[in-house]
Order: sequence, then structure tokens, then C-alpha cells
Amino acid sequence: MNVDLENFSPGSFDRGASAVKEALWLVVSLLLFQWCPLKLSALKCAVLRAFGARVGRGVVIKPQVKITFPWKLTLGDHVWLGEECWLLNLAPITLGNHVCISQRAFLCTGNHDFTKPAFDLIVKPIQVATGAWIGAGAFVGPGVSVGSHAVLTAGSVATAELPPDRIYRGHPAVFVKQRVIASA
Amino acid sequence: MNVDLENFSPGSFDRGASAVKEALWLVVSLLLFQWCPLKLSALKCAVLRAFGARVGRGVVIKPQVKITFPWKLTLGDHVWLGEECWLLNLAPITLGNHVCISQRAFLCTGNHDFTKPAFDLIVKPIQVATGAWIGAGAFVGPGVSVGSHAVLTAGSVATAELPPDRIYRGHPAVFVKQRVIASA
Amino acid sequence: MNVDLENFSPGSFDRGASAVKEALWLVVSLLLFQWCPLKLSALKCAVLRAFGARVGRGVVIKPQVKITFPWKLTLGDHVWLGEECWLLNLAPITLGNHVCISQRAFLCTGNHDFTKPAFDLIVKPIQVATGAWIGAGAFVGPGVSVGSHAVLTAGSVATAELPPDRIYRGHPAVFVKQRVIASA
Repeated sequence: MNVDLENFSPGSFDRGASAVKEALWLVVSLLLFQWCPLKLSALKCAVLRAFGARVGRGVVIKPQVKITFPWKLTLGDHVWLGEECWLLNLAPITLGNHVCISQRAFLCTGNHDFTKPAFDLIVKPIQVATGAWIGAGAFVGPGVSVGSHAVLTAGSVATAELPPDRIYRGHPAVFVKQRVIASA
Repeated sequence: MNVDLENFSPGSFDRGASAVKEALWLVVSLLLFQWCPLKLSALKCAVLRAFGARVGRGVVIKPQVKITFPWKLTLGDHVWLGEECWLLNLAPITLGNHVCISQRAFLCTGNHDFTKPAFDLIVKPIQVATGAWIGAGAFVGPGVSVGSHAVLTAGSVATAELPPDRIYRGHPAVFVKQRVIASA
Repeated sequence: MNVDLENFSPGSFDRGASAVKEALWLVVSLLLFQWCPLKLSALKCAVLRAFGARVGRGVVIKPQVKITFPWKLTLGDHVWLGEECWLLNLAPITLGNHVCISQRAFLCTGNHDFTKPAFDLIVKPIQVATGAWIGAGAFVGPGVSVGSHAVLTAGSVATAELPPDRIYRGHPAVFVKQRVIASA
């Protein structure tokens, strides 16, 4: 059998918002998130909440952050989103408290079933637990859970669960060492 | 010997269009492909054809797709180009039917001869055959042929031929398993 | 202990310029470096110098190059900066003569001490010596010195010193072979 993208199957995927809401978000996202060179984190958080996101206190959102569907986003307290990071949340993305997503990191909830001619869309949520750090340019794939205080180093690719309190590196990301946090 | 970029050699590289045509494309590319947050695939395909591309039916072009030289581009039917993918086609890039290029993927036809002081430009075409899938954030280097229904997983780097009907992963991308497509 | 980004420590980090200067740079960077589809290398170099960069002769700066702090930048003669490359120079970035930074490469001087609750910012300079080449989509981490005429291939990740005259590939980048430059 061959792939036939003309008869692509979106599976059970639900965009989660009306076309009007989505179009409005596209415009706001472009002006405030993509083009504006200022952080304006408080304003961005208020806008995300207005579009249905759950956003904690003290969240920092740098310029050029891309969020696909705010209505499928949950950010804990004191989350940092770095420049050019992309939360491609066709399925929910949930970041715990004190999570840092560094520059150009890419969290991608979308996949395709490459064993099917209709190349069925598969979306799976991503969770990043408290205190974890996704390094610059790193990639986190659909369905991945990143454990509390885990670290995915710069440029690494995670497509399976990352247990807590450990450092992971490479493609695919593998365990490097424990993360020990000293007293202040 | 040392590299001397002041005396860089473009080799036999031919840009393939007049300066006026190229400048016009830069403006159109910026407005319609980079800045416009809508898909508008039909319009984009018509524009690509006007600039010399061969583009099939049912092609989908997401926002922020970057195509360097439309006059060196061939897209089959039902090709998908994902957000922020870049077809850096100094040499021809040819995508077959039902090819999916995912978000932030980078197909790069340019190289340099690092054994020469003049750092000679070397450009080689890229071909992606029917039904193949280039994953998110993946890199495909100059001269690479991707076989029919091959899959290059997210974040992987391919610098050599990828035979058909197989999954490739890592840096450099290596064979992982066969791709079997079931009946619908 | 847990990470506490509310009490983040910037350590001894010094932004190196007044808020007014930084704001002005943000605007200029957006208009001239991010949005302008033309090279205009001579103008860009003059602007960088006006903001405190040391820039040599014959430097080529493509569109969509991102430089974080011009006042912490040193570029030798005949340096090339490719489209969408990012010099994230919280600490100084110094590029020697005839250095080529290819498209989408990312030179990142920032890190965090993940053993500390305050996730202390750590910045370390990056040096790329004469004739070296950082390939497309490659990542160079904080504190890395790239030796003269070394090559980091496309998509590779360097987090430790790269001695001169050698080719490095992969994640983490490892030695592949010597670079021999023939007579012209």
C-alpha cells in the first residue's frame, strides 16, 4: 500500500475552538508574540488566559514564542518560555512550576501513523513536571512525560519518558548522570 | 593553506534567475510566505508557479515556509510543507507525490569544499520520493535522495541516501526498522 | 532541594549596556536584521559598530541573523553570518577572520547551574578561530573554543573544545577526520 495524503485522516483530532477564535488567536499571536520585540509577560499571560489557557503566577514569556492552541495550554507558576521556543500543542501541553523551556526548543504533540495509507494524525499530550529544564534547541516528542527536575540538554531529542532528577543528552536522549541540587 | 573567504569561489553555481526576478520573489516571499499567518495554499501554489516552480494538485503550504528559489522547485501532488520548514534549493529540490515535510525541517542543497582555500560552493540536488516523510526539525543535506515511503524521524540528520520503505533516526540517521503500510 | 525560579540568581551577569541602548538595539535589530529581506551587509556592519561591536572588513551578514548584544561581539575580516543564525552573546562571542557561520546555526553563551536552587545564570564566551566553519543548524555551547579551520558539520552539537584542523560531527560532536586544505 502507498500513502495517500489526499485521503488523509485527522483521526479523532479536535481543534478545540471555533474557527473565529482560532483566527483571532492567529492575529494576536502574530502581533504580540511573534513581532513584538518586548517581553510584556504580564500582558501575554493575560491574553493567553483570555484564550483559555491556565497560567500561573510569575510566568516569563520572551519574544517570538509560538503557542499553537492556548486553550490546550497549562503553565504552572514561574515558568520561563525562551525566545523562539514552540509549544505545538495540538494535544494539551502541561508545564509544572519552575519549568524552564530554553531558546528554540520544540515541544511537538503531533505525529502520524506511518503504517496507515491515510497517514492518520495522532496527537498525544506532553507533560513537563516541576523544576525540569528543556535545553536550547531540544526536541520533545508527542506523549513524552518529563519528570520533575529532569534536564534535557541543548539540542537533544526526547521521544520517550524522561524519569525525574536526571540529566539526558543526545539523539535519542539517554541518561547521563543524576541531578543533585545542593542547599542554597 | 588557509581558507580565504575574500577570494571565495562560487564554482559553477547559477542562481537561475535575473536579479529583478529574485528581488521580486524576496518581497513576495516575505509578505505571503513569511508574514501571512494564513495557509492560502492555492494562492501560494499559483505564485510559486508564476515564479517558475512545477507544483502539482492539492499541495498544502503552511505559514512561514521558506523557499529560496521557486524556479528550482518541483512539488508533486498532495505535498505538505509544514510551518518553518526551509527548502534551501540552490540546486533543484524535487518532492514526489504525497510527501510530507514537517515543521522546522531543513532541506539544504548547499555545501562548501572545505579542502579548498576558496571554500568553493558546491550545490547538489535533493530528491524526496513518493510517500516519504521528513520529520519535524530534521535536516536533509545536499545530494541526498530519500527513497519512496522512507521516514526520517524528528530531529534526525541525513547526509547520505535513504533507501525506500524504511525508518531512519539519529545523527547521522541510521536504519531503525522497515516501514510496513497496512491495507486501509 | 527544588529549583525556585522565583528567586533566580543572575549571578555576576552584566548586560553591558543601558536599558535605553538595549531598547534601541531591539528596534534596529527587528527592522534591519530580522525583517529586511536584503543583505545590506555594509549598513549592518556600520550599525553593529555604532552599538559597540568590533567588526572587520568584508563581513557578510545575511537576512534574519540574530545578535543579542552587539557590544559583546567581535567579528574578524571576511566573516560570513548565514540566514537565521543566532549569536546569543550574553558573554562575548569572538569570530576570527574567514569564519563561516551557516544557516540556522546557534551559538549560545548562556547556561544555568542546575545544581543550585536559584538556577544561577552562567555565561561563558565563545571563540571561533580563523577559517573555522560552523555548519547549518549546528549548536555551539557556552565556553566552547573552536580551533582554527575546524569544521562542525550540519546539525552537530559542540559543548567542549574543538581542536583545530579537524572535522567534528554528531551529538555530542566527535572527531571524524583531519581537514587538509590543498594549494589553490
